Amino acid sequence: MALGEFELIRRFFDRPAPGLVRGIGDDCAVLAPTPGHHWLVSTDMLVEGRHFLSTVDPEALGHKALAVNLSDLAACGATPRAVFLALALPRADAAWLEAFARGLFQLADAHGVALAGGDTTAGPLNLCITAMGEAPAGQSLLRSGAQPGDTLWVSGTLGDARLALEGFRGTVSLPSEAFAATRLRMERPTPRVALGQALRGLATSAIDVSDGLLGDLAHVLAASNVGAELQADALPRSAHLAAQPLHLQRLCTLTGGDDYELVFTAPADGDDAVRAAAAGSDTSVTRIGRITAEPGLCCVDAQGQPVRAPGASFDHFRQT
Amino acid sequence: MALGEFELIRRFFDRPAPGLVRGIGDDCAVLAPTPGHHWLVSTDMLVEGRHFLSTVDPEALGHKALAVNLSDLAACGATPRAVFLALALPRADAAWLEAFARGLFQLADAHGVALAGGDTTAGPLNLCITAMGEAPAGQSLLRSGAQPGDTLWVSGTLGDARLALEGFRGTVSLPSEAFAATRLRMERPTPRVALGQALRGLATSAIDVSDGLLGDLAHVLAASNVGAELQADALPRSAHLAAQPLHLQRLCTLTGGDDYELVFTAPADGDDAVRAAAAGSDTSVTRIGRITAEPGLCCVDAQGQPVRAPGASFDHFRQT
Repeated sequence: MALGEFELIRRFFDRPAPGLVRGIGDDCAVLAPTPGHHWLVSTDMLVEGRHFLSTVDPEALGHKALAVNLSDLAACGATPRAVFLALALPRADAAWLEAFARGLFQLADAHGVALAGGDTTAGPLNLCITAMGEAPAGQSLLRSGAQPGDTLWVSGTLGDARLALEGFRGTVSLPSEAFAATRLRMERPTPRVALGQALRGLATSAIDVSDGLLGDLAHVLAASNVGAELQADALPRSAHLAAQPLHLQRLCTLTGGDDYELVFTAPADGDDAVRAAAAGSDTSVTRIGRITAEPGLCCVDAQGQPVRAPGASFDHFRQT
Repeated sequence: MALGEFELIRRFFDRPAPGLVRGIGDDCAVLAPTPGHHWLVSTDMLVEGRHFLSTVDPEALGHKALAVNLSDLAACGATPRAVFLALALPRADAAWLEAFARGLFQLADAHGVALAGGDTTAGPLNLCITAMGEAPAGQSLLRSGAQPGDTLWVSGTLGDARLALEGFRGTVSLPSEAFAATRLRMERPTPRVALGQALRGLATSAIDVSDGLLGDLAHVLAASNVGAELQADALPRSAHLAAQPLHLQRLCTLTGGDDYELVFTAPADGDDAVRAAAAGSDTSVTRIGRITAEPGLCCVDAQGQPVRAPGASFDHFRQT
C-alpha cells in the first residue's frame, strides 16, 4: 500500500492534542508554558539492528521508543507534556504504522502527553523522539546534587532486560515463563514517571538506568563529585533472575542496560519520605547503598567483600 | 580513529550554552521560559541518499541541518532558543564530525541559539534536529490566518536550489559561476529568522518554502480556507535563473524545493509596514499575488493568462 507523506501523518499520527496551543499541521507546534515552571527536554534516537531487530513487534517498538524518553523526563522529575516523532521508513507500510502508532499512543495516553509534531521521510528505519515536560523552577532532579552521607536507592528490579537479551543470544537457556516475562521487561519498559514527580524536592539526584547501573551511577558520582558504596546483594531482582547463577545475576543487575528504573539519592534522614513517595506512586524502591565523600564506586557483597564488576557499561561506539 | 559515545559528545558538541538552566550532561536539558511567551518547536530528519549525498561537505551539512529547522521557527516568527541534535553515524570519524560541528555552530552562534542536548548512536547516517524558539503569546505566525484581500509575499529569490539540483542531475548545463552560486543556495540556505520576527503582529499567515512554492502555499490556503491568485512572472529569481529558458524558470520558482524563503500574507493596507519590516531585517521581499475568497490556487502570467504548473511538489513517499 503506497501512502504519501502527508496522508501518512494524517492517517496515523494526527490526533487531537489537548494541552497544546497548536499541534501537528503547522511549521511548528505551539506550547504554552505553565507559569513558574521550567521545561525539561530529552531526545533519543533508535536504529534498526542496533536498538531493535527488524523482526520487532511494531506495537512494542512504538511503546519502547516513547518509554525511553519518558524515562529521561522521569529521571528529572518532570511532568510529560508533549512529544515529537521523527521517523525514517524504508517504505510506508500501513499495517506496521498502525501497530507502531497504537503502541506509542497507548503509552502517551496513559501519561496524558500529546504527540505535538514530527517529521517523516524515506530511509533506513530510524526513530527519533524528543520529549518535553515541565517541573516547578528549581525542583528538577539533576545528576549533580548527591551529597556524602546520602542514601542510594533504585526503583523496581534490575537486570531482567539483560537476562532476556542473553536468552535471545542463546548464552542462557530460560524456562519459557521466565523468557516471556523478562522479554516483556525488555520490550515494554515502564518509565517511572509518577515516582520521578513524587521525588521532587526530596531526592538530591537521579538518573535512569539505560546503559547499566554501574555506568549510569558513575555519571551521578562524576557530576556530584562524590563516591558511593553499592551493596551488590541488595540489588532488587525478579524471581526469574534470582533463579539464575550468581555471576549472571551480577552481570545483569550491575551492567545490564535497558532497565529504565530510577537510581536516586536522598538525605540520610529521608527514608520514610522516600518510602512514602514510592508508595504514593505505586512503585517499589530499594535502598542499595550510600554516597561517600571519597570518590570512586565501591561495590561490596553482603559480607562487605569487594565485588569485581563483571563487564563494562554499554557504549554505542565501543561494543562490550 | 575510534571514539566512544561520551568522548564524541564531549569533544565536538559539549560547549557552554548561555541562556539555559542546564545543557548537555544530564537526562534532560532544562530551559526557563520567558514570561508571557509561547514555545515553538520543530523537528526535521535528514537522511543520507535522500536529503544529501554521501559525498556532501560535512560543514555544509552541519549548516543545512540546522538551517532547515531555524527556517521553521522563522516561519512562525519565533526567536530561536535551543536545538537538540540526534545523530546516527556509520562510524565516529573525527575529521567529519569536526567539520559538521563547525558548520552547525557557526549558524547557531549567528542566531544566538544553544545546542542544549541530543543523542548519538551507530547506524546509517541520519540527522534529526529539534529546534525550540519563543514568541510572545498570541503572536506566532500560523498557516491559518490568511484572509481574502490579503496581499501575498515572498522573501529573497526562489528556484536557485532547484536549478543547482538540475545542474547536478545533468538536465541543464550551467556556467561555472551560476553553478557555484546556486549550489551555495542549495547547500547553505539562509533561514529568514530576523524577517519572521519582524513580521510578528503584521503578517496574517506564513510558511517556509521547503517542498516548493505551489505545494507549500497550498498548505496555507487549506489551513486558512481561502484561495490565491499568484503572479508567476512576479516571482523573484536570481540573475542565474533568469538567464535560463522560461519553462525552467517556472519549474524552479513554482515547484523547486529547498529555498527556505518565507511566503506570507499581510493586510491589503500593510504594504508599507511589510517593506519596513523587510528593510529592518535586511531581507528583500516581493509582492507576488493576493488572497481570494474563492478556494483554489490560480497562477497567471503578466498578461493575466493561466500558467500551468510544471510539476508536482515534493513528497518524501511519492517521488516526482
